Amino acid sequence: MSDAASQHADEPTHWVLTLSCPDRPGIVRAVAGVLADHGGNITESQQFGDPLSGLFFMRVQVSAYAPREVLAGAMSTVARTFAMTWSLDVVGRPVRTLVMGSTAAHCLNDLAFRQRSEKLPVDLVAVVSNHTSLAPLAEFYDIPFHHVPVTSATKAQAEARLLELVEELDVELVVLARYMQILSDDLCRRLAGRVINIHHSFLPSFKGARPYAQAHDRGVKLIGATAHYVTGDLDEGPIIEQDVERVDHTRSVDDLVALGQDVERRALARAVRWHAEHRVLLDGHRTIVFR
Amino acid sequence: MSDAASQHADEPTHWVLTLSCPDRPGIVRAVAGVLADHGGNITESQQFGDPLSGLFFMRVQVSAYAPREVLAGAMSTVARTFAMTWSLDVVGRPVRTLVMGSTAAHCLNDLAFRQRSEKLPVDLVAVVSNHTSLAPLAEFYDIPFHHVPVTSATKAQAEARLLELVEELDVELVVLARYMQILSDDLCRRLAGRVINIHHSFLPSFKGARPYAQAHDRGVKLIGATAHYVTGDLDEGPIIEQDVERVDHTRSVDDLVALGQDVERRALARAVRWHAEHRVLLDGHRTIVFR
Amino acid sequence: MSDAASQHADEPTHWVLTLSCPDRPGIVRAVAGVLADHGGNITESQQFGDPLSGLFFMRVQVSAYAPREVLAGAMSTVARTFAMTWSLDVVGRPVRTLVMGSTAAHCLNDLAFRQRSEKLPVDLVAVVSNHTSLAPLAEFYDIPFHHVPVTSATKAQAEARLLELVEELDVELVVLARYMQILSDDLCRRLAGRVINIHHSFLPSFKGARPYAQAHDRGVKLIGATAHYVTGDLDEGPIIEQDVERVDHTRSVDDLVALGQDVERRALARAVRWHAEHRVLLDGHRTIVFR
Amino acid sequence: MSDAASQHADEPTHWVLTLSCPDRPGIVRAVAGVLADHGGNITESQQFGDPLSGLFFMRVQVSAYAPREVLAGAMSTVARTFAMTWSLDVVGRPVRTLVMGSTAAHCLNDLAFRQRSEKLPVDLVAVVSNHTSLAPLAEFYDIPFHHVPVTSATKAQAEARLLELVEELDVELVVLARYMQILSDDLCRRLAGRVINIHHSFLPSFKGARPYAQAHDRGVKLIGATAHYVTGDLDEGPIIEQDVERVDHTRSVDDLVALGQDVERRALARAVRWHAEHRVLLDGHRTIVFR
Repeated sequence: MSDAASQHADEPTHWVLTLSCPDRPGIVRAVAGVLADHGGNITESQQFGDPLSGLFFMRVQVSAYAPREVLAGAMSTVARTFAMTWSLDVVGRPVRTLVMGSTAAHCLNDLAFRQRSEKLPVDLVAVVSNHTSLAPLAEFYDIPFHHVPVTSATKAQAEARLLELVEELDVELVVLARYMQILSDDLCRRLAGRVINIHHSFLPSFKGARPYAQAHDRGVKLIGATAHYVTGDLDEGPIIEQDVERVDHTRSVDDLVALGQDVERRALARAVRWHAEHRVLLDGHRTIVFR
Repeated sequence: MSDAASQHADEPTHWVLTLSCPDRPGIVRAVAGVLADHGGNITESQQFGDPLSGLFFMRVQVSAYAPREVLAGAMSTVARTFAMTWSLDVVGRPVRTLVMGSTAAHCLNDLAFRQRSEKLPVDLVAVVSNHTSLAPLAEFYDIPFHHVPVTSATKAQAEARLLELVEELDVELVVLARYMQILSDDLCRRLAGRVINIHHSFLPSFKGARPYAQAHDRGVKLIGATAHYVTGDLDEGPIIEQDVERVDHTRSVDDLVALGQDVERRALARAVRWHAEHRVLLDGHRTIVFR
Repeated sequence: MSDAASQHADEPTHWVLTLSCPDRPGIVRAVAGVLADHGGNITESQQFGDPLSGLFFMRVQVSAYAPREVLAGAMSTVARTFAMTWSLDVVGRPVRTLVMGSTAAHCLNDLAFRQRSEKLPVDLVAVVSNHTSLAPLAEFYDIPFHHVPVTSATKAQAEARLLELVEELDVELVVLARYMQILSDDLCRRLAGRVINIHHSFLPSFKGARPYAQAHDRGVKLIGATAHYVTGDLDEGPIIEQDVERVDHTRSVDDLVALGQDVERRALARAVRWHAEHRVLLDGHRTIVFR
Repeated sequence: MSDAASQHADEPTHWVLTLSCPDRPGIVRAVAGVLADHGGNITESQQFGDPLSGLFFMRVQVSAYAPREVLAGAMSTVARTFAMTWSLDVVGRPVRTLVMGSTAAHCLNDLAFRQRSEKLPVDLVAVVSNHTSLAPLAEFYDIPFHHVPVTSATKAQAEARLLELVEELDVELVVLARYMQILSDDLCRRLAGRVINIHHSFLPSFKGARPYAQAHDRGVKLIGATAHYVTGDLDEGPIIEQDVERVDHTRSVDDLVALGQDVERRALARAVRWHAEHRVLLDGHRTIVFR
């Protein structure tokens, strides 16, 4: 992570701190104390205690002059006391992101455009695809394109290549942008909490293959999409965002597919933004989203 | 059905004609011909040919002086030629409706209020419930209340009583407004196409019992409701309308239940309105909704 | 305000604390410190610093055994230091609410129903109307009805009667539920921040009279409603909530009025809920809504 | 317009016929008669009579073997009888479209992407801009780019160049995709009904300049966008489509601008699609949209 911000001691850095820990009194005081001790000014914060899981969640944006090592050091002490999982980052720092796709371009096009024009805080460091049709789009947006073909025989090899890229490129987030392959359990575990998938249905409706055909056959009046973290349990990972679009009887399966692209890219873009802004925290198999 | 309208020969009646039949050239000409031959002026119409089922659907609102028997007679001839299923009604005529409920009042309250204040074209001729808690609300809206208790031993008897009421009161539409009992296959068949249920989930997600608890556990970001015709195949009947509401991690199961009431009554009210306005036509296990 | 909660020392009370003050470092630490010193456990909190107004806003839900006077006393000290505007209440305590209406019943019906069935935390202590048609509905929900006719000659007298009721009944919130009279500047000032109005348009579109007729003439594709605090500046008070509904060319002005009722009551119910849950804080002529 | 379709006499062509005329009995019969006489099979149709304007509107999709000249000839006769404004086109034929932009790329990017991937039935024949920053995007999508600078001194000249391009390129539709210049009255008249603009507010709210800054200052809870036909009366042209997006107090003006881009491109894309599919008919200063 870039520490560039801490060099300019004459202007405060805008930090985002997230944490979760077993709930008990005194957490907010302890954290607010650390921040205030370092001259921090809280500009935005949200806290939530989940009565079911017994966990407490917090996200703070704080403006402070203290350099990272000082802030992080002080937080470490508090974190140990409360058994916290925590992270500290600079607000708006682009998250190093690798996009995996197949042939459908809408999600990649949307993320790349929003990165450039709508301040989506990601740095698209690679596009990986088992086809080549996304190469020109990646090139237009100056994103290195990696063609990694996948067959049942070469699947392990392809996943090894992906992990290599993740390591080499210091990738923090992998986005499955309508990548039509199922990741192995092992890969899911190794990248746990760092892979976002967009599923082309309103989960848990229409799991599995060809959801729009299923939706058309069932005669639904709304179609949807679901952005979720990927786990070994297919289509069952923690949901980050869902959205829907109204349809009617005049729509064919092909129309649903086309209309669905819009819902998919919208839900995915929000999920990626919230993840990159450290607004999504894991609470067991569900998510806390501090929007 | 009231023919009152046909008495005032000095003002045209506003008719609504719906039909479906195997698709083939000439249907619209034939129907428009019948209407024009009787001085009819079409004010609103929609047509749709379903390439999958091979059926053609039509809904026409037409202003005409001809009395019902004349119009209907002329239509009969055309209907035979094209093997049509059809209906002719006066626009806005209230549909005789029986509401079945249990203890939750929101759907009944909503339908009764909209009937009175928002021109929902239904005539609420009875409330039937296996509990008594809806009686005061029914009384406030001057709807006769029938307490029909149901136990596993008396289920057949209770259904017989319902059928009796349907017959006696000339009921055209039965609305299951969060009636928590499952109707028998036999009853479903006898009232086919005349019973609308509101299911408290975004079908086909969370079929069966306690959908909000299921939704909460899955961590969904939208909850929904589905209004559908009842068939013997539980929760699988043709969908008329669906709607959703955004939720987040702060919501408990109880909150979802309370929030869900709003989605349920909204989806149900639209489905009932469209049915009563003859905007819903059956196309196999799906619906055509001419909104 | 009821202090009943503080009697049961064996179970913690769930408090909601809101505050706003000039932004500067240390606010959250100071508040969290007070709460922790009294054994408080924060279950939900949100903070926001507005860079434009320079104000800081906070809402905390905290579970604590300390009685009100102790908590409030400790907060007073902090509040003086930071020049805070603040309030402390028991979570879920019903806010004493007076509803003003005219002839349209949909908003009153909706609020009364939600109060009873959806845990809307208000206590409806009076319905005041310049007509009598809402009396039966008020009676059904056991709300005392006050007929206060208004003519241009008796307007001052009618407002005096309203203020009397507000005082006598210890009213905390006045809801203008499609009350068609304009309040005097003086009354607006005296009840500042305590009167919520529902305007039947998506403000600032279609201010003034007959907004649905204006909307129809302009051919808009969405109609809306706006719930806002009432100020002397007609239709310009701080907006709390807005919502819209899709319409099309087939809709007459009357249809828009009927459809609009649904949007109005939805937006109003949310605004009233958020106000009653102390989620709405004033930031000049705008609102902070901690949903 | 291409008549390619009529060459393949062995497969029927799918036609779309639209018309409007003074309302009177017999219109549908006459049109359906012409279509049936030529073996036409209606697959989808909508009709509407506007009681205010006294006009009747119709859109028909019909499958027929008859070549254009035969169908059009027969329609001409009917059209004269009923004083119709009408058009006949092949379903899905791409409409020759010129996009005007300034520096913001989101609308152009969206239209170009949808044209390629979502079957948006337009042929983007030119991008015209008073800046050069859209040139690479146009090039990526193989759309000829024309740089036409505009100053107050050269405005007439720039408009003349635009008209030249419209003529040369046989342009049917001009889309102002956040083109920040106001067209002259004369140009508006010459291209009446053929220019669609996207206005970055929920009209009639926030007309004129910097609508997001106005919206932010007013503290609205929803921001919107409006796609409308351009007339000489700025921001007052017939509305085709509107959409909104929820915002809250944490959003700065810059955030609203970024969020607004999403609403703008969505509303514009729908308006362009409906126009290109001949679903939008003019009814005075309002539109009929047969979706």
